[in-house]
Amino acid sequence: MMISTQQLHDFNQPLMTAHEAALCYLHDTLGRQAADVIEKLVTFQVAIPSWALGTGGTRFGRFPGGGEPRSLAEKIADVGLLHQLNGSSDAISLHIPWDIPGDVAAVRQQLQAAGLRIDSVNSNTFQDQPDQPISYKFGSLAHSDAAVREQAVAHNAECIQYGAQLGATTHTVWLADGSNFPGQQHFRRAYQRTQDSLAAIVAALPSPDWTVLVEYKPYEPNFYSMVIPDWGTSLALCQALGPQAQVLVDLGHHLPNTNIEQLVGRLQHFGRLGGFHFNGSMYGDDDLTTGSIKPFQLFLIFNELVDAGQDPAVRNPAVAYMIDASHNTKDPLEDLLQSVDNILTAYAKALLVDRAALEEAQQANDAARAEDLLRDAFLTDVRPLVAEAYRQAGGALRPVMACRALQVRDQLTKQRGLRALSTGL
Amino acid sequence: MMISTQQLHDFNQPLMTAHEAALCYLHDTLGRQAADVIEKLVTFQVAIPSWALGTGGTRFGRFPGGGEPRSLAEKIADVGLLHQLNGSSDAISLHIPWDIPGDVAAVRQQLQAAGLRIDSVNSNTFQDQPDQPISYKFGSLAHSDAAVREQAVAHNAECIQYGAQLGATTHTVWLADGSNFPGQQHFRRAYQRTQDSLAAIVAALPSPDWTVLVEYKPYEPNFYSMVIPDWGTSLALCQALGPQAQVLVDLGHHLPNTNIEQLVGRLQHFGRLGGFHFNGSMYGDDDLTTGSIKPFQLFLIFNELVDAGQDPAVRNPAVAYMIDASHNTKDPLEDLLQSVDNILTAYAKALLVDRAALEEAQQANDAARAEDLLRDAFLTDVRPLVAEAYRQAGGALRPVMACRALQVRDQLTKQRGLRALSTGL
Amino acid sequence: MMISTQQLHDFNQPLMTAHEAALCYLHDTLGRQAADVIEKLVTFQVAIPSWALGTGGTRFGRFPGGGEPRSLAEKIADVGLLHQLNGSSDAISLHIPWDIPGDVAAVRQQLQAAGLRIDSVNSNTFQDQPDQPISYKFGSLAHSDAAVREQAVAHNAECIQYGAQLGATTHTVWLADGSNFPGQQHFRRAYQRTQDSLAAIVAALPSPDWTVLVEYKPYEPNFYSMVIPDWGTSLALCQALGPQAQVLVDLGHHLPNTNIEQLVGRLQHFGRLGGFHFNGSMYGDDDLTTGSIKPFQLFLIFNELVDAGQDPAVRNPAVAYMIDASHNTKDPLEDLLQSVDNILTAYAKALLVDRAALEEAQQANDAARAEDLLRDAFLTDVRPLVAEAYRQAGGALRPVMACRALQVRDQLTKQRGLRALSTGL
Amino acid sequence: MMISTQQLHDFNQPLMTAHEAALCYLHDTLGRQAADVIEKLVTFQVAIPSWALGTGGTRFGRFPGGGEPRSLAEKIADVGLLHQLNGSSDAISLHIPWDIPGDVAAVRQQLQAAGLRIDSVNSNTFQDQPDQPISYKFGSLAHSDAAVREQAVAHNAECIQYGAQLGATTHTVWLADGSNFPGQQHFRRAYQRTQDSLAAIVAALPSPDWTVLVEYKPYEPNFYSMVIPDWGTSLALCQALGPQAQVLVDLGHHLPNTNIEQLVGRLQHFGRLGGFHFNGSMYGDDDLTTGSIKPFQLFLIFNELVDAGQDPAVRNPAVAYMIDASHNTKDPLEDLLQSVDNILTAYAKALLVDRAALEEAQQANDAARAEDLLRDAFLTDVRPLVAEAYRQAGGALRPVMACRALQVRDQLTKQRGLRALSTGL
Repeated sequence: MMISTQQLHDFNQPLMTAHEAALCYLHDTLGRQAADVIEKLVTFQVAIPSWALGTGGTRFGRFPGGGEPRSLAEKIADVGLLHQLNGSSDAISLHIPWDIPGDVAAVRQQLQAAGLRIDSVNSNTFQDQPDQPISYKFGSLAHSDAAVREQAVAHNAECIQYGAQLGATTHTVWLADGSNFPGQQHFRRAYQRTQDSLAAIVAALPSPDWTVLVEYKPYEPNFYSMVIPDWGTSLALCQALGPQAQVLVDLGHHLPNTNIEQLVGRLQHFGRLGGFHFNGSMYGDDDLTTGSIKPFQLFLIFNELVDAGQDPAVRNPAVAYMIDASHNTKDPLEDLLQSVDNILTAYAKALLVDRAALEEAQQANDAARAEDLLRDAFLTDVRPLVAEAYRQAGGALRPVMACRALQVRDQLTKQRGLRALSTGL
Repeated sequence: MMISTQQLHDFNQPLMTAHEAALCYLHDTLGRQAADVIEKLVTFQVAIPSWALGTGGTRFGRFPGGGEPRSLAEKIADVGLLHQLNGSSDAISLHIPWDIPGDVAAVRQQLQAAGLRIDSVNSNTFQDQPDQPISYKFGSLAHSDAAVREQAVAHNAECIQYGAQLGATTHTVWLADGSNFPGQQHFRRAYQRTQDSLAAIVAALPSPDWTVLVEYKPYEPNFYSMVIPDWGTSLALCQALGPQAQVLVDLGHHLPNTNIEQLVGRLQHFGRLGGFHFNGSMYGDDDLTTGSIKPFQLFLIFNELVDAGQDPAVRNPAVAYMIDASHNTKDPLEDLLQSVDNILTAYAKALLVDRAALEEAQQANDAARAEDLLRDAFLTDVRPLVAEAYRQAGGALRPVMACRALQVRDQLTKQRGLRALSTGL
Repeated sequence: MMISTQQLHDFNQPLMTAHEAALCYLHDTLGRQAADVIEKLVTFQVAIPSWALGTGGTRFGRFPGGGEPRSLAEKIADVGLLHQLNGSSDAISLHIPWDIPGDVAAVRQQLQAAGLRIDSVNSNTFQDQPDQPISYKFGSLAHSDAAVREQAVAHNAECIQYGAQLGATTHTVWLADGSNFPGQQHFRRAYQRTQDSLAAIVAALPSPDWTVLVEYKPYEPNFYSMVIPDWGTSLALCQALGPQAQVLVDLGHHLPNTNIEQLVGRLQHFGRLGGFHFNGSMYGDDDLTTGSIKPFQLFLIFNELVDAGQDPAVRNPAVAYMIDASHNTKDPLEDLLQSVDNILTAYAKALLVDRAALEEAQQANDAARAEDLLRDAFLTDVRPLVAEAYRQAGGALRPVMACRALQVRDQLTKQRGLRALSTGL
Repeated sequence: MMISTQQLHDFNQPLMTAHEAALCYLHDTLGRQAADVIEKLVTFQVAIPSWALGTGGTRFGRFPGGGEPRSLAEKIADVGLLHQLNGSSDAISLHIPWDIPGDVAAVRQQLQAAGLRIDSVNSNTFQDQPDQPISYKFGSLAHSDAAVREQAVAHNAECIQYGAQLGATTHTVWLADGSNFPGQQHFRRAYQRTQDSLAAIVAALPSPDWTVLVEYKPYEPNFYSMVIPDWGTSLALCQALGPQAQVLVDLGHHLPNTNIEQLVGRLQHFGRLGGFHFNGSMYGDDDLTTGSIKPFQLFLIFNELVDAGQDPAVRNPAVAYMIDASHNTKDPLEDLLQSVDNILTAYAKALLVDRAALEEAQQANDAARAEDLLRDAFLTDVRPLVAEAYRQAGGALRPVMACRALQVRDQLTKQRGLRALSTGL
C-alpha cells in the first residue's frame, strides 16, 4: 500500500488550527530558535532496520501480529510507509542473509520509488544458516579454528558486496562471540583473532568512503564474557584497524548505571563515533522503544551530539543513526514511529540548550545554573516543532495517530495475511 | 540406554586407590564430620527438569547437539542415566504441555524402573500453544480480560491433575506476566488479579499435602515490570493464599548485587521457603551451570539452609531442590552432572562449618573470626567426600568423566539421531 | 534574615507579563485542568530535614560553603526562608541528637512565627555520640547484646518525646545495622531482634495518631548485608508491628534497575506506604537533587501516587513527603528549591494524565496508546503552573532565581560567617 | 613493638605436626607443583598503604579502635609487624600530604631496619588541606580554572619528589574529578584538561624508570560522572601519555557485573597493566577485605596474571600489587593479614591450573573440560602451601592467629593509647 498526499493532507487538516496556535506560541517564546530547530529536524533522518518490521520475541516466546513483511520488497514498502508518515526515515538497513537482494536492479528501483536509500549492511555470524558448512556455535571472528574465522570473514565480505551493489557505504559488525563459562575462551588470543578477522574485513571494503562500524555489548548471547564487551575494546580495535573503522553505540549494550552520554562525548573527542543504535533499556538489551524508559538520558545524549556538532575542534565524521529495537508488544510500525518521535523530541530539546550560557556556567562551576539551563530546554514542550517538521517534510502532524486513522495495519494484514511472518529474531 | 553396575564399577576401579587415600586423609583431618557429611550427601537429591535435557538457546539462536530426548519416555530415560551416574537426581519435573503423559500407567512404570519420582509440575502461560483459544500475549493470570485468566487458571488446574496422576505434590507457577512500557499495565489491579487467579489455583489442589510454589523474577520476558518481581511480592501473595503456597527462589531471578543468602534465611525465618531453582548467573537470568560463576555465594546459601535445618525454632517445611538451567554451550547431561557436583560441593562445605564457634563469634561481633570459620569450611577440599557419596549411592566417583568414558552422548545420538530436538526453550 | 512580601513582589513584577501569557496559553490548551493542577500544587507541601541545610560530604571529603545554620533556631530560619520563596516547604524534620530542642517553648514560637510545623523526628543509632555508654559499632536495634538494643530503643523513645513536645506525630527509623562480611551476623536472629526492638519503640508512642516509619536500604554503611535491605523486609516488619508502623521509601535506597514506581503502587495497595524521602540517584544512595537524573521516573512515581489518591478502594493513610539529599556541590538552599521544583513539576504532570483514557488503554492492552497518554502529560510544559502555584502561595515565580537575586546566601554568610558549620553528614 | 624470631618459632611449634602432615599430603598429590607454588608464594609481595593501618569509616561515621599509628614512623612499624608475621608485605605506599617524610634519612633508616621499601607515592587532590590556596571542590587536574590545575600538578610533582628521596619509582594518580549533575562539566574539555595535566606530571618524573599509574573509578565521590570512569579512559590517557603511564585496576572501581578478569587480560595484552589495588566489593567501592565476597573472581584474576606472566608474547612490565581497603569493622592489622592470605590463596590456586590442558580444551571449545580444569585448581586446599610459604619467609604459619596470640593490638594500644587516631579516610 501507499499513502497518498491527499490522505495525509486530510488527516492533518482538522489538527491544523490547534497546531498553528501551538506553533505560534513557540515562535513567540523561543524566537528564531523555533524555526532553526524545525529546519534541523526536517533534515534529520533515522534509518530503519529491515528486521524491526516484524514482531520481535524473547527466548520465552513470540506473539506475532498480522501483515508482517515477507520479503525484502515488502520491508522496503513498510519503511516507505513510515517515511511517508514522518518524513524522517529515508533509509533501510539490511541484514544478510535475511535480506539478500535477488534482483539488485529491482531493489534499487523500489528504493528509488519509495524515496529511500540503503543505510548499512549487517552481517550475521551469531546463527547458523541451513546450508552453512561450519557452525558458529563457539564463535565466528574470534573462533579458535581458522576455518570458522575464514568463513565468517567471507560472509562479511559478501555482505559488503551486496551493500556496494545497492549503494551503501557502511557495514556494521555486531559480534556475538564470547563465552559462557570461566576458562572456556582464552581472552587475549580471542581478542587478537578478532582484530585479525576485522582487519581482513576492512581490507575487503571496496573504497575509502566505506566504514566498518564495530559494535560492543557486555553480555547476551554469551553470559560470562563477550569478546567486544565495551566501548574501550571497540575503540582499541578501531585504532588498530585504521580510519575506516568506527565505534557503534547501541543504547542497550551497557552495564547497569553506565553514563552513556559521557562516553558518546568521549568517542567524539577521539573522532571515533561512527553510529548509533537507538532503543530503550531498563535492565539490559531490552530493545524497547527508544526514549520510553529514560527520555532524559536520550536528551543528554543528543546534548552531546549537538554540542560536538557545533564545535569546530571536533573532527568526528558524520554519525549513522539507526533504530534497533525489538517490537514484542506493540505494532512494529507504531513502535518505530514512536521511536522516531522520541528521537526528534530529544534532538529538538538539545538544540534549544543555550550553549553559550551553559559553557559560562560550566567554566564557573555553577552546577545549579548549568542544570537549570538543561532543564529549561528539557521542560520546553517541543511537540509542535516536531509536528511542524513532519508536516514540512510531507508527513502527518501526528504519525502514530495517522497510522491508526489510515488503518495501515489492517490493510497490510488484508494484503499479506494474518500469519505473515517476517524474518528476524 | 542403561548403564550397568558393572560399567560403573569398572569405571571406578582404577580411581579407587587415589580416592581412598584422599578420603582417608579427610577422615583423619575432619574426624567424624567426614562420615556425617558423606551420609547427608548420599541422601540429598536434586530434581531435574524435563526441559533441561535438550540444548537451550537465546533469542539470538540455538545450536543443538545430537541425541536429545524426543519424548517424555526419553526424558525419563535421560534423568535415569544421570541418577545412575551420580545417585543424586532421583526426580524429574514435568512441564505442561511439553510433557503431557499420554499413558499414565506406562509413565509410572518407566519412573519406577528408573528409580525416579515426579518432583513438581510446571505450567506454561508464557507461550501460546497451537490450539489455544485466547492468546497470552498480554498476560495470563494477571490479564485484564477475565476470559484469559480463566483459561490460564484452567491450564494450571490441568497441570495439577496430571501431577496428581503421577504422584507429584508440588505445582510451580512462574508467571511471565508484566509490561514492557510505562502505563501499559495498572500495577495495583494486575496484582489483585494475580492474587485472585492464584487463589483459584490453590483451590484446585487435590489434597492438603500439595503445595503451590510462587516464583518471582524482576525482568524478562517483560522489560519494564513483572507482576511478581521480587521475594517481597511472592511472600505477600503466599500470605494471602494460605499455608499451601510457598515462595520459590531461582538463583538467576534477582537484580544486580542482591544478597540472596540473606533473603533465603529470611524466608526460612518466616517458614515460607518452598523451593529452589539452581543455576548460575553473572548478569541476569543467564541460566548457566549453578556454581560456575559464584561458588562462594552458593556455599553461603547452603550455609543458611544448613543453619536453618539445624535450628528447631525454624518451622520451614521441606524445601524442593531443582536445577533450572539452560544448556546452550555444553552437553546438557554433562552440564547437569556438573551442576549437581557444584551443589553437593557447596552443601558439603556448609556442613563443615563449625556452627557453635560461628555463633560465638557472631555473638561477640568478631567479624574476622566469623569469616575465618566460613573460610576454613569453604577452603576444605571436599571432592573426596562428594565422590564417596556418589560411590555409596551406586554411582561413579567422577560422574562427568564417567559420562564421557561410557560414551553416553554418542550412544544416545546413534539411537535418536543427530537432529533429535527436545521441546523446551 | 526574613524576606519581605514587598521583596517578593518586586522580584515577581518584571516576570509577570511573560508568566501571564504562558499561563494563559495553558489555560487555553488544558482547560479547567490548569486551575485544578494549580490548586493542588498550592496545597502540596514537602518537609525539609534539618540536616540538609548545611553542605554535605562524602567519606572522601567535604567542601563547606559559608553561612550554614549553626543551631536549631538558624535551621528553622532557613526552612522559613525556603517556605517564603516557594510556599511549599512548611515543615521541618528534626534529627536527634543534632537538633535537641533546649527551650521547647522558644522553638514552638520560632516555628509558629515562620509558619512551619514539625514533620517527623529521626533517630541516630548509626554514630556514637561523645557521652554514649555503649558503642553502635556493631549495630543498635539488631545488636547481639541486649544492653545495646536497650540503649538504642531508649534513644528512639527519647526522640519521640522531643517530637511530642513539638507537635510531631511521625518518627522515622533508618537502621544502619548490618554486616560487612559473610558470617559476621546471624541473619535470622538479627531480624528477630530488630522486630523486637521496633515493637518496643512502637510501644513507646504517646498516642494512636503517631506513626513509626520503617526505612529500608540495601547497602551503606554496611556492605555485605543490611538488616532491613528492601521493601519486603520493611513490610514484613510493619505487618508484625501493627497499624502504627508504615514503610518509608527513599528513592536512593534500591538496587540497580529497581522499578520503584511499581513498589510504590504495591505498598499503597497494601495500605502500607507511610512516607517518602526524595533525592536523586544514578548509582546508589547518591543523595543528589531529586529529579536531576531521572525526571521521568519521578513522574511515574507521582503517577502512582495520584492514581492511588483518586482510587477510593485504596486505603493508604496520608503519605509524609520529605527531601533527603546531601548538598555536596550546590548551595543547599538552591538545591532544596530545585528539589521542590522538580517534585512539583512531576506532580503537576502526573495530575495531567487522562486517567479514564489510560485505564481504557490498559484494559485493552494498548501499550502504544497508554504510553502516549503518559507521554503527553510528561511533555507538557508545566513550568507556568508551578510558577503560578508559588505565586498564589505567596512565593516567588522562580524561587532559585529569587534566592540569588535577593542575595540570600551572602546575607546569611555575613550574619553567620564563612566558617559556620552545620551539624550533619 | 617488634616480634622476635623466637616468638614466631614458639607460635609455629605446636602447629608443625599437623602442618607437615598436610604439606606432605599435598606434595604427594600435587607432585613437584607443590614446591614450585611455595617458591613463588615466598617471593610474592603485596604493598600496604599507609592509610589502611587505621580504622576506616563511611560518610555515616567511623568507629575507631585503639593503638592506631599516629605518625609515619608508627605506620612503618605496623607494616613491619605485618611483614614479620607473613613475610609477604615488604613495601609501604605513602600518601601525601598525610605521610610527608620530615627527616628523610630517618625514614630510610626505619624502612631498612624493618626490611621494607617504598612502593609508590599517592597524591591527594580530592580534599582541601588547611593551608591550601585554592579549593579542589570542583576538581583538580580537570578543573576549568588553570590556576587550580597548576596547583594540582605541582602537588603531584611534590609527591614524586618525596618518593624519589625515599627510593620509590611509582606514582599513583587517583582522580576524584567529575560532576554530580548533568551539565555541570563539559565532558570533552574536562578530558582534554586532564590529559594535559597528566602530561605535565609525567614530565615531572625524575627518571625513565618511573611510572605514573592512572586509576579509574565509575562513581564516588562524584555521582553523575567521573573524568576517568573506566579502563577505556585510563588506557586512552596512557596511550597519549607515553610509555611511562600505565593503567591501575582497583577491584572496587567497576560498574555492577563487570568481568574484571577479562579487562585485566586485555590490559596485559596491550602491555598496559601497571598495578592493582586489592579489596573486596559486593556493591561498589566497598573496600572490604579482598577475596571476602568473591573469592572465585580473585582466583580468575590471578589466573589471567599467571597466564600472561608465563606467555613470552606478553610484554607487560612488572605489575605493582597493593592492598587498598578500608577497615571499618575489623582490626586493620588482622584485616590486612586476611587480605594477603586471600591473595596468596588465589595466586596459589592459579598456579595449580594445568595450562597445557586448559589451552587444549579452549582450542577444542570444550567448555565443560575447561571449567573442570579451573575448578580442580580452585577446589584444591592450598592452605598448607600458603602456610609453608609464610614459614619459609620467616613468618607465622597462621598470621592472623599469631597476631592475636602475640597480643599485638593490646601492646600497640598500651603504647599509643586508646584514642590514637591515624590519618586517612
